[in-house]
Amino acid sequence: MPHVELADDLPGITAGFAFRPETAKPMRELAHILLHTSGHDGFNSGERELIASFVSSRNTCYFCQTSHGAAAAHLHGGDASVVDAVCSDYKTAPISDKLKALLAIAEQVQVDGKRVTKELVEQARVQGATDKDIHDTVLIAAAFCMYNRYVDGLATWQPRDAGMYVEMGKRMAEEGYYKG
Amino acid sequence: MPHVELADDLPGITAGFAFRPETAKPMRELAHILLHTSGHDGFNSGERELIASFVSSRNTCYFCQTSHGAAAAHLHGGDASVVDAVCSDYKTAPISDKLKALLAIAEQVQVDGKRVTKELVEQARVQGATDKDIHDTVLIAAAFCMYNRYVDGLATWQPRDAGMYVEMGKRMAEEGYYKG
Repeated sequence: MPHVELADDLPGITAGFAFRPETAKPMRELAHILLHTSGHDGFNSGERELIASFVSSRNTCYFCQTSHGAAAAHLHGGDASVVDAVCSDYKTAPISDKLKALLAIAEQVQVDGKRVTKELVEQARVQGATDKDIHDTVLIAAAFCMYNRYVDGLATWQPRDAGMYVEMGKRMAEEGYYKG
Repeated sequence: MPHVELADDLPGITAGFAFRPETAKPMRELAHILLHTSGHDGFNSGERELIASFVSSRNTCYFCQTSHGAAAAHLHGGDASVVDAVCSDYKTAPISDKLKALLAIAEQVQVDGKRVTKELVEQARVQGATDKDIHDTVLIAAAFCMYNRYVDGLATWQPRDAGMYVEMGKRMAEEGYYKG
C-alpha cells in the first residue's frame, strides 16, 4: 500500500506524477534533457540510461533500475546483458573506457558528492570526457538519488512484470520523458 | 577548484546553474514549487525551508544547509536559533508536533525511501498532515539528496561568509527560485 492515496493502476513514479502534476512537470523535463535530448557521440542516450539504471541499482530502487535498464537495453539493440554487466560490475562490463570512468564518478556521487576526487575526474578526461559529460554524469547520478527516493519513499506499486518493463523502456527510449 | 570550468564569482549551485541553463530551469522550478508557492497554514514555506536545511545538514552540504537555513530563519522573523535546533535535534526543537512528524519522514528519506514506515506516516496524519503534506515532505527530502550531491559533486565554491548567506536566504525566501 502506498503511503498516500495514489492511482491503483499506475506503477512507480508515474503514480507520484499523476498525484502532483505541478512537480511532475519539472521532474519529467529534467529527465528528458539529461537522458533523451543531450546525447551525442561518445556519451549517448543508451549510455546515460545505463548510468541511471546503475545508480538506481545502488539505491536498490527496483522500479527505476528495471525501467531505465530496459530503456538502456532497447538503445543497445535489445541487449539486456550489458545492463546486467554494468549493474553487477561495471569495471568488467563490455562498455567503453570513457563510460567506465564516468560510472566511477557516478558511483561516488550516489554515496556523497564530496567523494568525487580530482583523480576520478582526470581519468574521465583522459578517456575523452568533456566538462559537459562530467557535469551531466554528476547530475544524472544526483537526480536518480532523488527519483529513487521519491519512488520508494511513497511506497509506490512496483510490479514484477518483466514484459511491462520492456514495453515501458522502449517507450522511454523512443519518446523520452517530457509531456508538455 | 571545481571539477568543471565554472564561473569564478558564483557560489554553490548558482555556478552549476550558469554552466548548464537547460537543466537549471527545471531544477529551479521544482524548488520554487516545493519551497515557495506550495506553503499553506500548517506547512508553510518557513517549515519547508527547515526541512530543506535539515536534509542538507544530514548530507553535510554546507552551501545548501546554510542558504536554506538562512531562508528558513528569514521566514521565522530572523530567528536562526530554530534552524540550529532543528539541525541538531529536531525532536526537542521549538516547532510544531506536525513538523516534527514530517521531519521524521524526511530523516528516513535522506537515507533511503524504503525506510519510511506506515507508523511514521500514521504519526504525521495524527498531527494533521494531509496526503499532499506527506508527498511534499518525501519529495523535498528526495530533491535535496539531488541538489546536495550536485553542489558537492561538482566541487563548487562554497564561501564561508555568514553575511552573504543571510542576504541570499532573504532573497530566496522573498522571491523564490524560478527565473523564467
